[in-house]
Amino acid sequence: MARVVVDVMLKPEILDPQGQAVQRALPRLGFEGISDVRQGKRFELEVDGPVDEATLGRIHDLAESFLANTVIEDFTVKVEEVAEAVK
Amino acid sequence: MARVVVDVMLKPEILDPQGQAVQRALPRLGFEGISDVRQGKRFELEVDGPVDEATLGRIHDLAESFLANTVIEDFTVKVEEVAEAVK
Repeated sequence: MARVVVDVMLKPEILDPQGQAVQRALPRLGFEGISDVRQGKRFELEVDGPVDEATLGRIHDLAESFLANTVIEDFTVKVEEVAEAVK
Repeated sequence: MARVVVDVMLKPEILDPQGQAVQRALPRLGFEGISDVRQGKRFELEVDGPVDEATLGRIHDLAESFLANTVIEDFTVKVEEVAEAVK
């Protein structure tokens, strides 16, 4: 069993009010020196069997069509440690 | 400028209805072989200056006190590629 992680973030040109709210709150909470915060989503998928090129391709399609809204969001697909041994 | 990523996920023992909704929808959409999905949050923090141990310590405190609800969530702090050259 392997874990594949899909990270979905708003595109850089899209306003991110959640991230901005966090960033503006930081100085008030005593944290300085952080110039920008973006907030996105992280999906951890547990995949049965080995993670080969075909599986990653399918997960890429899944992320593109279903997990991310590609009009406003970018996504990355990566295999996590357990799966790297399997590859 | 360096980027530090804070990933916040529900603890394994906490029910994740968002992730379950995704997982249950997958076979209907033609994606088989994914046995579990967990959904969490990803924060990308742009840090001014180098990311040293002290900075990472402060970001760890920030994540613990502000980005994550540690009663129900786990978090990880990691430095992304740009910053690894700085370290």
